[in-house]
Amino acid sequence: MAEAKYKFKNIIGEFYFDSNMNPVKKPKSAQNLVEPKGKELFKILAYFKAHKYFKDFYSKNIDITKKKIRESVNEDNLVIQSANHLDEMNKIINTLAKRLREWYELYNPEFSRSIQSHEKFAEIIMKKSKDQLLKELGLKKANTMGADFSKADLKPMFELAELILIVFESKKQKERYLESVMKKYCPNMVALTGGLIGAKLLAIAGSLRRMVMFPASTIQLLGAEKALFRHMRTGSRVPKYGVIHDHPLIQKVAKKDKGKAARTLADKISIAVKVDYFKGEFIGDKLKKQVEARFL
Amino acid sequence: MAEAKYKFKNIIGEFYFDSNMNPVKKPKSAQNLVEPKGKELFKILAYFKAHKYFKDFYSKNIDITKKKIRESVNEDNLVIQSANHLDEMNKIINTLAKRLREWYELYNPEFSRSIQSHEKFAEIIMKKSKDQLLKELGLKKANTMGADFSKADLKPMFELAELILIVFESKKQKERYLESVMKKYCPNMVALTGGLIGAKLLAIAGSLRRMVMFPASTIQLLGAEKALFRHMRTGSRVPKYGVIHDHPLIQKVAKKDKGKAARTLADKISIAVKVDYFKGEFIGDKLKKQVEARFL
Repeated sequence: MAEAKYKFKNIIGEFYFDSNMNPVKKPKSAQNLVEPKGKELFKILAYFKAHKYFKDFYSKNIDITKKKIRESVNEDNLVIQSANHLDEMNKIINTLAKRLREWYELYNPEFSRSIQSHEKFAEIIMKKSKDQLLKELGLKKANTMGADFSKADLKPMFELAELILIVFESKKQKERYLESVMKKYCPNMVALTGGLIGAKLLAIAGSLRRMVMFPASTIQLLGAEKALFRHMRTGSRVPKYGVIHDHPLIQKVAKKDKGKAARTLADKISIAVKVDYFKGEFIGDKLKKQVEARFL
Repeated sequence: MAEAKYKFKNIIGEFYFDSNMNPVKKPKSAQNLVEPKGKELFKILAYFKAHKYFKDFYSKNIDITKKKIRESVNEDNLVIQSANHLDEMNKIINTLAKRLREWYELYNPEFSRSIQSHEKFAEIIMKKSKDQLLKELGLKKANTMGADFSKADLKPMFELAELILIVFESKKQKERYLESVMKKYCPNMVALTGGLIGAKLLAIAGSLRRMVMFPASTIQLLGAEKALFRHMRTGSRVPKYGVIHDHPLIQKVAKKDKGKAARTLADKISIAVKVDYFKGEFIGDKLKKQVEARFL
């Protein structure tokens, strides 16, 4: 058998070729082997077109892709999943609470109207009887619009109220989790935005990496895409803020300063995100104070 | 004081008038009193236009309206509430299950893809570890696309799975409740349609009373309003069935007979509803057998 001259490595293994570019077995000593270049390389690559290598390449490629997918999962994904989940939870709570109220209002409309918070509403109707509730409202049973229900007909309403409380509890758990993931992943942004708003920004941006590349003005308007494009199409007013609208700072500031505050806040968020991404020191508190000093 | 001659009753009380149509006190004996008619009645009615009676009429009217509202609540309302609630529950379960799968697929995509039922999926991931699940699928950890998660990151997923199971359980309770209400309220229809389909029909019709007045052809298409109006507007094909599409009979029958079966079923439902509304004897079983005899 001819002597090995070339050594060639690809994803399915190491191969050896003689001076005529024919495959040979692995030599005992790896000395004096060269990597094929130019013409030799072409010839050797052509050799791997043979059908018998197809399966090896295929399965190796699949493995590599799987590994890449596996390794591409990071905090971004967790944050995005829980942020979207929380959004859905809010909608679910609303759907269930509206249904409960519509249902319960056949029985005791006056009490339902007297209380705004869905959570308290669900809690109280499970604890107190209709008579008690009417008494507290100063109403007599003969003067109410609510019908009398049998126990069997009340049961599903109370079960629904219980379910609503469970969903509320579950939402709180998820909020705590999101907060903790965010604090580890982007402590500077969280110091400025709080967990939920930061997570929403991240979810819209797609990842921390992409968010780092956004200018502050984009961060200011994340979540206001609809209004922004409407503005670009029809010349309606430019939106001042997207997701950060719900930020306590923006809420507190006088109406005429809201735009300015949103701009400043987005500036600082933009800085914070960069520090987070490049694992800089914690400056979130400082940034927050700077914003607050200007507006509060 | 003049003697009472007329006695007049309205919602705020009994009143007495003398022969000149002036108000007087209630006489000791109610003998010989007449009800005012014609001219006298007009004069007496004008008397009540006085401002001082306004408040009495107002509060009495409110009371009467409240009473009417109170008494207007019946099984229709309960059925409609729970049917709509069940619809919403299905949507909620779908939203939550889709989220859980998206989330869990970062961790163990192969298992999620291997199982269709959302309920079983949620159940199993809480019971078995990833290693166990991969082993059952004949996969090695190095060959999967799922990332490794810390316990803290797994917890919210399992909490979500638990929530989904709770919602599933709650849905089953509500289905049982709906079934029992329907069986009491319209046993003949339930015998034909089952609780859920019957309830959906009722919810769309608005009440049993309204449903009684529908022709069978309307019942056949309840729930297919969109397709029906599209047909009327554009001449697209006439829908064959609405809500009753999900009925086991329609499901079982060969495709070419589905329209015919829907028509027959709607006919019998129309009869059943009328018997239910007018509290006739139970003939639901007989009707069901008639339909089945024709098509199964």
